[in-house]
Amino acid sequence: MSTRLPTLAVVGATGAVGTVMLDILSSRENVWGEIRLVASPRSAGKRLTVRGEEVEVQPLAPEVFDGVDVAMFDVPDEVSKEWAPVAAERGAVAVDNSGAFRMDPQVPLVVPEVNSDQARERPRGIVSNPNCTTLSMIVAIGALHRAYRLTDLFVASYQAASGSGQEGIDVLRDQTEKVASDRTLGTRPGDVRSAVGELGPFPAPLALNVVPWAGSLKEDGHSSEEMKVRNESRKILGHPDLRVAATCVRVPVITTHALSVHATFDTEVDAGTARDLLAAAPGVVVQDDPAGAEFPTPADVVGTDPTWVGRIRRSVDDPKSLDLFLCGDNLRKGAALNTAQIAEVVAGELTG
Amino acid sequence: MSTRLPTLAVVGATGAVGTVMLDILSSRENVWGEIRLVASPRSAGKRLTVRGEEVEVQPLAPEVFDGVDVAMFDVPDEVSKEWAPVAAERGAVAVDNSGAFRMDPQVPLVVPEVNSDQARERPRGIVSNPNCTTLSMIVAIGALHRAYRLTDLFVASYQAASGSGQEGIDVLRDQTEKVASDRTLGTRPGDVRSAVGELGPFPAPLALNVVPWAGSLKEDGHSSEEMKVRNESRKILGHPDLRVAATCVRVPVITTHALSVHATFDTEVDAGTARDLLAAAPGVVVQDDPAGAEFPTPADVVGTDPTWVGRIRRSVDDPKSLDLFLCGDNLRKGAALNTAQIAEVVAGELTG
Repeated sequence: MSTRLPTLAVVGATGAVGTVMLDILSSRENVWGEIRLVASPRSAGKRLTVRGEEVEVQPLAPEVFDGVDVAMFDVPDEVSKEWAPVAAERGAVAVDNSGAFRMDPQVPLVVPEVNSDQARERPRGIVSNPNCTTLSMIVAIGALHRAYRLTDLFVASYQAASGSGQEGIDVLRDQTEKVASDRTLGTRPGDVRSAVGELGPFPAPLALNVVPWAGSLKEDGHSSEEMKVRNESRKILGHPDLRVAATCVRVPVITTHALSVHATFDTEVDAGTARDLLAAAPGVVVQDDPAGAEFPTPADVVGTDPTWVGRIRRSVDDPKSLDLFLCGDNLRKGAALNTAQIAEVVAGELTG
Repeated sequence: MSTRLPTLAVVGATGAVGTVMLDILSSRENVWGEIRLVASPRSAGKRLTVRGEEVEVQPLAPEVFDGVDVAMFDVPDEVSKEWAPVAAERGAVAVDNSGAFRMDPQVPLVVPEVNSDQARERPRGIVSNPNCTTLSMIVAIGALHRAYRLTDLFVASYQAASGSGQEGIDVLRDQTEKVASDRTLGTRPGDVRSAVGELGPFPAPLALNVVPWAGSLKEDGHSSEEMKVRNESRKILGHPDLRVAATCVRVPVITTHALSVHATFDTEVDAGTARDLLAAAPGVVVQDDPAGAEFPTPADVVGTDPTWVGRIRRSVDDPKSLDLFLCGDNLRKGAALNTAQIAEVVAGELTG
């Protein structure tokens, strides 16, 4: 057993997820030896603080991966596609948070609470981190699936602006300022659209509105986000026959995705048992007492690690179905935290 | 055939829905003779404009219904419960927008585009107007049900603040002002809650948040709003076996409810045919070209009459299911407009 702690590279250290990642890495001791920060040449030379120390950001280049055990990637798909294999060639295990490799059958798609065993098989030297929307629910859904075996999943999302990165956050704040002062807005068609100014990454105004679109157009009118929820849920749960229907909607929330889920199982379910089962599941917190105004909301749970579940009900007309409302911080469990957890599983192998 | 135009009483003329009602009545000519405005004694004596004329608001009392043909009620449940039967005893047909009579088997629950024939049978002299959330989708869903016969309906709502009346609107505007100036909010647990001040009619902050609760607590953890969507959809469609599951969520939108709907039918469906069928349905507008950023959003369609439908897709994993996103102005079709339409159906009988 080696006593050397493994070396980590964080690629995309200066982005929205990267910033949360440095925060998470700073709160965990004795996992990593050297932490190397890497970003595009544009951001290289910046000095960022991790574990209380200033570290200079290095420009992305093949040599940066020499001696690295695990390389996390929080960069756009096309950057991951090019550079994760480079890191793997140089001997690092690449843990990638982009969409580039998620559906590659030779790349495991891992949520440690659900399928950590799959992180061990990585013929390409790459492990993928799921999409943030899938991650906001899958820990809880996985626990229910283990108990009752899922057959159908209907998901309607309430997705935060930060799913579109720092630009999404900035645009929502700008729009909120613009609509705040005029108390007549939101009553005539298009008055909000005229008031908000720049739409930024969103295809319609987000302040005082909801927008039924996230991602790009895929087959038959589905959005890329909706297809990711379907395809990634199936892969993570190891359930290729699961029927999934998702409608993804952006809402004026800064960070933390929420989801209304209608889940149907092979057997009859009971809300009380489901509640106990979820409460006992690692990474899940149950907050479910509507009489006492107890249910998770995005603004109340943002910045926390778990998947929060409330409104747990057996469907009135189907004893095999549950209705739930879930919240998960899309920058933490939905991105940086899960990537860090996967990296720790890999590190555990290397040092164990 | 009588040439006298029928007399209308508007009870609750000074409320949020009443205000929209006067606007709608002013845009329709030759339907009503006298229009009598009625409200609580507190608001009596006010002068409101309808059809360009100032009319003095009369206090609610039995005599106010003498000579009235149709009396619309936009008042709380307990006021309707007491006063709609009084209006009926005095010879008026009461068209009630409260929840007091909706599930009474002797009171029809009417959406003119779906079941106008049912307005003719009214043993108690009362016709009920459905809940705003049900009304935001049922015209479109009814058209699909006629073609394909519904078996299951899953609904996740994105409900506007005005569903909680003028107080809901005022509180959302106050909260929006309070969160607009601090660009750090929405990133730490509870920071929005500390900033927004009064919660008003909502059980959690609504600005920069979504709240998975609307109404009061009913059986097995369901909210009254969720039970209304189920029970009223079944009654309006005349389909007592329809399986419905709803999760109702409030969002920071001023007016216009939106819904993600997953609908399953007896037969295979096709998105193109469904789109054509919806486009041809009275009271429905299809806006569905995501490549061109064409889909309905609440802020874009507020203040309009139709039910707007977009994101029409056949479910990836079930050829008998459609996924849709719908918007409807909860103060117009969701309340005042549908009440006015029912009243016109009744008036047509009286004068025809």
